[in-house]
Amino acid sequence: MIQRVCVVGAGVIGSLYAAHLATVAESLVLTRREEHARALNEHGLRVTGRHDFTARVVAAARVRELPEPDLVIVATKAGGLEPAASALAGCFRGATVMTVLNGLGAEGIVRRHGDWPLVSGVTFMSGTKHSDTHVEYILDTETWVGPYEDTPFERVEEIAALLVDAGLKAEALPDLRPAQWSKLIFNATVNGVAALTGLPHDSHFAAEDGIADLGHLVHDLVDEGKRIAAAAGVELHDDPWEMNVLATKRGSAHYPSMLEDVEAHRPTEVELIGGALVREAQKHGVDAPLHTALYRLVKAREASYS
Amino acid sequence: MIQRVCVVGAGVIGSLYAAHLATVAESLVLTRREEHARALNEHGLRVTGRHDFTARVVAAARVRELPEPDLVIVATKAGGLEPAASALAGCFRGATVMTVLNGLGAEGIVRRHGDWPLVSGVTFMSGTKHSDTHVEYILDTETWVGPYEDTPFERVEEIAALLVDAGLKAEALPDLRPAQWSKLIFNATVNGVAALTGLPHDSHFAAEDGIADLGHLVHDLVDEGKRIAAAAGVELHDDPWEMNVLATKRGSAHYPSMLEDVEAHRPTEVELIGGALVREAQKHGVDAPLHTALYRLVKAREASYS
Repeated sequence: MIQRVCVVGAGVIGSLYAAHLATVAESLVLTRREEHARALNEHGLRVTGRHDFTARVVAAARVRELPEPDLVIVATKAGGLEPAASALAGCFRGATVMTVLNGLGAEGIVRRHGDWPLVSGVTFMSGTKHSDTHVEYILDTETWVGPYEDTPFERVEEIAALLVDAGLKAEALPDLRPAQWSKLIFNATVNGVAALTGLPHDSHFAAEDGIADLGHLVHDLVDEGKRIAAAAGVELHDDPWEMNVLATKRGSAHYPSMLEDVEAHRPTEVELIGGALVREAQKHGVDAPLHTALYRLVKAREASYS
Repeated sequence: MIQRVCVVGAGVIGSLYAAHLATVAESLVLTRREEHARALNEHGLRVTGRHDFTARVVAAARVRELPEPDLVIVATKAGGLEPAASALAGCFRGATVMTVLNGLGAEGIVRRHGDWPLVSGVTFMSGTKHSDTHVEYILDTETWVGPYEDTPFERVEEIAALLVDAGLKAEALPDLRPAQWSKLIFNATVNGVAALTGLPHDSHFAAEDGIADLGHLVHDLVDEGKRIAAAAGVELHDDPWEMNVLATKRGSAHYPSMLEDVEAHRPTEVELIGGALVREAQKHGVDAPLHTALYRLVKAREASYS
């Protein structure tokens, strides 16, 4: 039974997990910055938006200062994954470790640092972090979890049940890859195009009238992604083009994280998203000229910061 | 014999022509803004850099205020071409009109407004405009001119000779398309990539080591451009990839105009450059996935301004 959970990385997603899980378990938070941990210990973690409460959490910036949890949820950004996984090495030997990063390949990076049973997660929640101790819960969409390697499915179901008890939406899937790949193709396309054009995810992404219309490119990128998925033997859970059309029909346009990153001159998550897709294409011998172009352009955009 | 020249559009290139031609002919300048014309009439046009002199020019913002020239040189940016050509309609019936815009298709736009004999020009000069009456001449590279439709080659040779007399480098070519297309492919590639990545034309554009390296994309874009040229029956004057490698080896990285445009949130020249190349590909039945993607991304970047 899961009685104590440690969330690693307290951005939007990590904060939403930590606060909600505090209502049904002991909730620990491993932060990157000392002052972030201090603020959480002092003020708790406030949630507004879809839900409204303040949770009590135990936070630290060093792993050794935290008690042993039953479950670790790694919710860093791509750039924080390697340092986080290496900090966990040799610790929390009795825990199951679940990753909920964007893209593909996070589990493999964690695996290099320890032999915990691993669970793959993909989340569609969204929110806004207003301060170190206040997160707004905006989209209360699902978290899907599935086993990685030989982790028993019962463990995965237990985690999904815990998230649901905590007031979040979650589902356990025997094979997460169809969902993970749907989101991978969607994100590689939408995040890459947004980062390069400066457009939030708005109606331009679905426009397919004139030859210059962006929707044609988005559609071509999605189709190329589907060919890569097929070559990798993955049947998609959702059609990324339909996900795109649906999302652009919502009221306010979502501001993709990769666009926020390039505007703030921060490293993006392109390696785990577009880069991962391009490497899968290579591995399975599929041509991927458009995703490769997008990947190289985003990498070049990062190179322009200095 | 060419005794009076009217330059339309007094940006960097127009100013360089107007000032130099004033040393061998009467030099008129048609400006967009009244105050620009007033400043030129009052102070003349100063050239620094490769040459150093101040030229006397006669400027106006209205065509009817200028006397009839023998030669009109249209040197606006793409966005200024249609208004400039429509202002010339019905005027200067005895003149030859030469266009020196980037890209492809400027002659056709001018043709819709009058039946002047037309001359195609492409220039590799560069400079910096320090004020309405001061332009710095930086790269003293050539202007190439060629006949458009049935303009006699003798007229083209006369224009090239006049430019050389004026202290500029120029050459008359019986067929300008090989040079025009070399520059078109170069510009569609380098300007598009720079506008999207924020990189000036630096060594990243020639880097071809790792899979993520930008030079691979630049090379693929050039190769795609060459296939379009071949389908259009054009043998290139220069290899755009070699132009690219050579340019990135110069001391300081050139800041492509399309990058300046997107950073200032101005309309770019993409329709006459990338857009023209994509339309040529369509016309000749050649696939152009990468240039089409670049074109759509730059158009979307323009759409993000508002």
